[in-house]
Amino acid sequence: MGQSKMKWVYAFSSGVAEGSADMRDLLGGKGANLGEMSSLGLPVPPGFTITTEVCTSFYENNEQYPGELESQVITALSEVESAVSAKFGSSENPLLLSVRSGGRASMPGMMDTVLNLGLNDKTVEGLAEQSKDRRFAYDSYRRFIQMYGSVVLDVAHHHFEDILEDYKEQKNLSLDTEMLAEDWQAIISSYAAEIERQCGKPFPQDPLAQLWGAIGAVFGSWMNQRAKTYRKLHNIPESWGTAVNVQAMVFGNMGNDCATGVAFTRDPSTGNNEIYGEYLVNAQGEDVVAGIRTPQPLTLKEKSRGGVESLAMEEAMPEIYQELQKVCARLEAHYRDMQDIEFTVQKGFLWMLQTRNAKRTAHAALKVSVAMAKEGLIEPREAVMRIEPSSLEQLLHPTLDPEASRVVLARGLAASPGAATGRLVFEADEAERLSHAGEKVLLARIETSPEDIHGMHAAVGILTARGGMTSHAAVVARGMGRPCVSGASELQIDYSAKTLVVAEKTIKSGEIMTIDGSTGEIMEGRVATVQPELGGDFDTFMAWVDEYRTLKVRANAETPEDAAIARKFGAEGIGLCRTEHMFFDASRISAMREMIMAKNSHDRSGALAKVQPMQRNDFLELFEIMEGLPVTIRLLDPPLHEFLPKTDSEFAEFARSTDTTEVAVRNRAAQLHELNPMLGHRGCRLGITHPEIYEMQARAIFEAAVEVRQKLGNPVHLEIMIPLVATKSELEIIRSRIDLVAKEIEGSLQTELSYLVGTMVELPRACLCAGSLAKEAEFFSFGTNDLTQTTFGISRDDSGHFLPTYHESNIVEQDPFVSIDEGGVGELIQIATDRGRATRPDIKLGICGEHGGDPSSISFCHKIGLDYVSCSAYRVPIARLAAAQTSIGQITRGD
Amino acid sequence: MGQSKMKWVYAFSSGVAEGSADMRDLLGGKGANLGEMSSLGLPVPPGFTITTEVCTSFYENNEQYPGELESQVITALSEVESAVSAKFGSSENPLLLSVRSGGRASMPGMMDTVLNLGLNDKTVEGLAEQSKDRRFAYDSYRRFIQMYGSVVLDVAHHHFEDILEDYKEQKNLSLDTEMLAEDWQAIISSYAAEIERQCGKPFPQDPLAQLWGAIGAVFGSWMNQRAKTYRKLHNIPESWGTAVNVQAMVFGNMGNDCATGVAFTRDPSTGNNEIYGEYLVNAQGEDVVAGIRTPQPLTLKEKSRGGVESLAMEEAMPEIYQELQKVCARLEAHYRDMQDIEFTVQKGFLWMLQTRNAKRTAHAALKVSVAMAKEGLIEPREAVMRIEPSSLEQLLHPTLDPEASRVVLARGLAASPGAATGRLVFEADEAERLSHAGEKVLLARIETSPEDIHGMHAAVGILTARGGMTSHAAVVARGMGRPCVSGASELQIDYSAKTLVVAEKTIKSGEIMTIDGSTGEIMEGRVATVQPELGGDFDTFMAWVDEYRTLKVRANAETPEDAAIARKFGAEGIGLCRTEHMFFDASRISAMREMIMAKNSHDRSGALAKVQPMQRNDFLELFEIMEGLPVTIRLLDPPLHEFLPKTDSEFAEFARSTDTTEVAVRNRAAQLHELNPMLGHRGCRLGITHPEIYEMQARAIFEAAVEVRQKLGNPVHLEIMIPLVATKSELEIIRSRIDLVAKEIEGSLQTELSYLVGTMVELPRACLCAGSLAKEAEFFSFGTNDLTQTTFGISRDDSGHFLPTYHESNIVEQDPFVSIDEGGVGELIQIATDRGRATRPDIKLGICGEHGGDPSSISFCHKIGLDYVSCSAYRVPIARLAAAQTSIGQITRGD
Repeated sequence: MGQSKMKWVYAFSSGVAEGSADMRDLLGGKGANLGEMSSLGLPVPPGFTITTEVCTSFYENNEQYPGELESQVITALSEVESAVSAKFGSSENPLLLSVRSGGRASMPGMMDTVLNLGLNDKTVEGLAEQSKDRRFAYDSYRRFIQMYGSVVLDVAHHHFEDILEDYKEQKNLSLDTEMLAEDWQAIISSYAAEIERQCGKPFPQDPLAQLWGAIGAVFGSWMNQRAKTYRKLHNIPESWGTAVNVQAMVFGNMGNDCATGVAFTRDPSTGNNEIYGEYLVNAQGEDVVAGIRTPQPLTLKEKSRGGVESLAMEEAMPEIYQELQKVCARLEAHYRDMQDIEFTVQKGFLWMLQTRNAKRTAHAALKVSVAMAKEGLIEPREAVMRIEPSSLEQLLHPTLDPEASRVVLARGLAASPGAATGRLVFEADEAERLSHAGEKVLLARIETSPEDIHGMHAAVGILTARGGMTSHAAVVARGMGRPCVSGASELQIDYSAKTLVVAEKTIKSGEIMTIDGSTGEIMEGRVATVQPELGGDFDTFMAWVDEYRTLKVRANAETPEDAAIARKFGAEGIGLCRTEHMFFDASRISAMREMIMAKNSHDRSGALAKVQPMQRNDFLELFEIMEGLPVTIRLLDPPLHEFLPKTDSEFAEFARSTDTTEVAVRNRAAQLHELNPMLGHRGCRLGITHPEIYEMQARAIFEAAVEVRQKLGNPVHLEIMIPLVATKSELEIIRSRIDLVAKEIEGSLQTELSYLVGTMVELPRACLCAGSLAKEAEFFSFGTNDLTQTTFGISRDDSGHFLPTYHESNIVEQDPFVSIDEGGVGELIQIATDRGRATRPDIKLGICGEHGGDPSSISFCHKIGLDYVSCSAYRVPIARLAAAQTSIGQITRGD
Repeated sequence: MGQSKMKWVYAFSSGVAEGSADMRDLLGGKGANLGEMSSLGLPVPPGFTITTEVCTSFYENNEQYPGELESQVITALSEVESAVSAKFGSSENPLLLSVRSGGRASMPGMMDTVLNLGLNDKTVEGLAEQSKDRRFAYDSYRRFIQMYGSVVLDVAHHHFEDILEDYKEQKNLSLDTEMLAEDWQAIISSYAAEIERQCGKPFPQDPLAQLWGAIGAVFGSWMNQRAKTYRKLHNIPESWGTAVNVQAMVFGNMGNDCATGVAFTRDPSTGNNEIYGEYLVNAQGEDVVAGIRTPQPLTLKEKSRGGVESLAMEEAMPEIYQELQKVCARLEAHYRDMQDIEFTVQKGFLWMLQTRNAKRTAHAALKVSVAMAKEGLIEPREAVMRIEPSSLEQLLHPTLDPEASRVVLARGLAASPGAATGRLVFEADEAERLSHAGEKVLLARIETSPEDIHGMHAAVGILTARGGMTSHAAVVARGMGRPCVSGASELQIDYSAKTLVVAEKTIKSGEIMTIDGSTGEIMEGRVATVQPELGGDFDTFMAWVDEYRTLKVRANAETPEDAAIARKFGAEGIGLCRTEHMFFDASRISAMREMIMAKNSHDRSGALAKVQPMQRNDFLELFEIMEGLPVTIRLLDPPLHEFLPKTDSEFAEFARSTDTTEVAVRNRAAQLHELNPMLGHRGCRLGITHPEIYEMQARAIFEAAVEVRQKLGNPVHLEIMIPLVATKSELEIIRSRIDLVAKEIEGSLQTELSYLVGTMVELPRACLCAGSLAKEAEFFSFGTNDLTQTTFGISRDDSGHFLPTYHESNIVEQDPFVSIDEGGVGELIQIATDRGRATRPDIKLGICGEHGGDPSSISFCHKIGLDYVSCSAYRVPIARLAAAQTSIGQITRGD
């Protein structure tokens, strides 16, 4: 495109604008909305936007502006002069300008604002004349010099503060309001001298030079280090560039008929349909930020709620307030979303400086979306699209009271959301004991293992020094809905001393601590929390969600408690019932250990026979709770050594109780030891070498299914899942053994059993060989945790040593244990899906790894056509929403 | 095909035959060769073969013979009667038959032979008449009853032996030769009575019933348990079936002008072009097997070599011997390979009973193939195809003297070929000390680690109780050419007691043991070994091999010794130089540990600076040895904790020497500990988080390359390889750091460096993302060990717990760590190859895992078009041969 035809500058003025809200990419968010508001006829100070393309062109052409820019700026400037009947640089009636940056996305680190631009030793007199307020004019001038000096000329802020402080001290003045015009004049001289000293040239008196200086500073700040870092962290392309907004100044500080403020069209923390905001009389926007004066509430309701004395705008400026109300209604109706507005009142006239979609709490977001849909402002579909799925977590877990003060000692990974306060304990048994005694406990471990589960369950929160987002602690905690901070590597936990050392403090067992699993913060003492409330809006919203959703959502659950929560949260079945957790119970683990010590298959069967009735009972309740819905049961997965004792005293105790020697137990443990247990003798490999185990499990499952069917009159929808399969033969052999058990039970109980047999697909080889696996498997459930570990060759338990560096260096964009790595793991899932369906078109396909609760992974699962995702109970609503959004997104895009 | 037209029986008789050698599938090996020999006009007793299709049909049709079989057998039988002018069942001149099984592949467990069939109470008299030897006739009859009774009627052999023993005792006779015709008659009556008692019916007197009984027994034995098991173990399809060979009897036991024997057309243990074999005068084949009489040599040469007294056939029956010589020459010329012949001499007439390609030692195979090609009997190409690549191992390593007696205590995995005898030691340091003192030592460890390398190098052989074919011990031993038996799980090694307990014996440190790494045997004391000789034949052969080979062969080598051996064995470069082995040297490991303990990058660099000159020196010699050939250097791969101390005393010592506390060292070790080190903080992940390490290595490599180029005048063909890459970013980051070091050195040394940078492809994700990796990588080297571990999800170190069961259950046909799993790992390699070439058509592709020395994996690499394989030095000749055979195989198949 020839540069000669380029339009670089877009003008706006109340009632007319060259830009509009849909030109965000070109004009930035602020510029686009200024144009939009102007077109709506709202009172916007006239001005113009220099486009983001100027920024891009500037950096592509050795920091040269495009040739036509200057003339387009001059033309736009003269239009502003006409609109406000003032002249830039005039010493009688000077036009003053504000210059602000504004990109597509808001970006800290960029130059923010220069106000009162155009003032100099001459125009300041014109302003004094126009405002009839000499003190105001010189105050404005000194503010301009200070702002311009620091943000454009890079003179450190403290120099100006020092000059002001010295002057006040010398004159024995304490408040700015005590300063007279002459005082400001003196300050102005000192400021100018300081600038000249530091920059080697005088403060620019030429208003146009000032303008180009400010424009250049905005573009320059696009490439400063803070902005670069921010872009890198947030994946904002450098090529987006920033726009510059130049506007005629309006003044909220010209007297008591002036004000400045911000307004939300609804309450951003509750979502209630009430204007909410703050204002300051006789002030400029920066005064609000500086925090020198306490802002006043906008409405009487706020005033009474806050118990403040100062006047609400509603009573102090009732007409203006009514006008503001109208503008709010107008903007919300126009943008069809809650707005966050900046305004200034100049001598009784309301000016709009900015509008944008308002940030809000998850609670408010839900309430606003449902209300707007009910009001007819938006469609239910839009309401569904407006809620960030992961934000629902805030609704489902207790959260820290945002008002509460706290001392943050350290930070770990935000592994399982929600906040928890309790007494620190280091042992699972102690956690259980104290919990039974009515104490709330926080369990802190270096890392957790399956033997800690009863302690994790007993605790209100879990804290670990090692392990990532999918470490044992994190996964189990999310499954249980317990807040968890994992991998807080600064913690030094000493089990024998029962102490935790962090930030040079030693915290003893029994002391109170607080964790926030939504932020990863670890805090001293008690920090107040607020409990979640789910109500009618939540139910209404989730009903809409389910109308658009096609992907099914199941839960990973193995206890009756988990299953009940899952069902309450709308799970459509259990996608992963891990049977091993059932073996760690104290009453069972001894039988399991006896089985492990057995010398032959006969003795193993004997030991397993003790476990079988207990395991059957586990399934009874689970099947009842899940009546009418499918339940996928995974046969034993972990290696046997996980069931062995760990400590010396446990070894001794175990030897005593099983009538064997400690040496024999230790020898067996040494024999079972594995260098890489993740890739070891587990899953179906155990099922192949120890057939008794899966046979016992199949028997327990089938017997429970028969019993529950008799009780409820409805069959159980059984899906038996074989883990860690790499070859078709493994599946064949184990499947035939399961079928044999079923035949036996059908014979002995005079009944017929109906069940599916399928496999976890969690190894790259299984994905590649999915075509042949599907001959034996009636369903595939992708175990994306292990599939990620093997595809990437990363042990999730050990990844904490390098994944943080990988994030910082942008080697991985997202933690592959949080969001499915589409380029690697995703392709394997796609291959397996295609090949599995080619062999067995009606094969059931789902995922049951941790990714089942991750919105972007759910979107991927929907796109490649899986039937369901399965996630921890507390993530079910999130998964339902993510699935609905993906469906809607695809419909919208015309797929 | 209509059964009415089927030909079920193929007749043969000297000079004419319906079958031939190319009908092996239909007639079995024995039947096809009997037909072939008959057609050649060799003296073959007339007979016929019932085809393998009869066997198949029999089992497909409820064990019914096809309708026309009976008449075809009768017709063929009458042809045999005509040919020998005798009549089946005649009491004057009876035709006697042998019945033998014979499938496509020889198969133990099948019914072998019934001789003298057709004898009964009447025909025995005719035989007596014809042979003029009553004793011979009744001896033949009782042999027949005994054989038929045991193999057809299933009467246990010992019953017949008991009867004979009782009779001899009663008559006070000790030798069979003392038995007269009347004695045999008495025995016959007792045998017949015993058979009737056991079977409930008399011994069949009808010769035709006898014949069908024997045929039925052959077919029946196809389905007996031993045969089924054998087929399963050797992947022989049940559908192949067996043939039955029915032949007129010839007798080697009719007097001293009779004999029976076996002959090899060349010496099967040396390959010398001399007839070799044994014979017995006046004996039937079974007498040789029974071992009652010592066979005599065929030739005078053999006689003098063996120092035996008995007459050689060459002197005892000179005319027959000459005839046999002619037959041998004829058969070898006809079959164009060394033959293994069975013959019988009946009253001065030579009969051929069987010929087949002879089994031979690897030495003999090489010599025979080269000789035959030089003689013009076969093409060099055929010579190349005739040697089993893996058999070359026997030529390259010392082997146990086959004559030596031995006591096998246990068996492990045949992890690295060759035999070794030495004093048992349990510690690497002790191994080194004793070795320096001139002792030959066998190093026994529960498992080995990189710190044991000096001990492994010092040892003549390595023995481990844990670990598979690709465990550390196995891989390193193969690389060093040290014999190794790994994973001998019956061994109980006690380091503190310095004992090894096996087979209820306790063997102490210092005692002598022997291992055979080619068989996995572990033996008590010393067993004699023979050293390999490589000579002119080997060189001639390998020159032919290289004419046909297109795939290049490199070696995995890191020491000058390995490199020299590799080059001697024809390696065309180094495909994998592991740099970590260089760090375990005592003088370096302390610097490495200092680096690990360092608190910051600066201190790490300081510690590494001590290692750098040593590492540079390592490369100097290596580069010189490999002059003109490419050298691929893999940057540091193992996790840092592998370099840390293991024992208490080492920890203490280390703390002292590095001026730190033992607690600090232990804390660091605990921090570095990993649950799954195979999937941990290693490879390029270490390179990313600790840039100093790879920078040091790059500097050492480049400086050495500059120095060697100056010395030799030729550039070093450098290939720098980055391990464990999963993403393009990893490669980009590390590559740019390497390039930076190169630039620095080019500047400081005023030179230009030429090198390639590439990556190990050893993770499934790397295979899938090969297209993008190839943008950064100039070569890929498939690390098939780790790729197999991750694709299958199997830790090779832990696989011993279940892989043996997997083999037995046929879940995996081959150990995937020995032969590339084409269905899984192979597909990933194919994907990576395709995608890598699509991005960079000239990308160099090779493999450097253990599979590089495995013939079937090499064939796979050739097929998918890789440029080279790299294997341990001792496997280079094997790889060259396997590569040549695949090329020839593809040319032959017209690809």
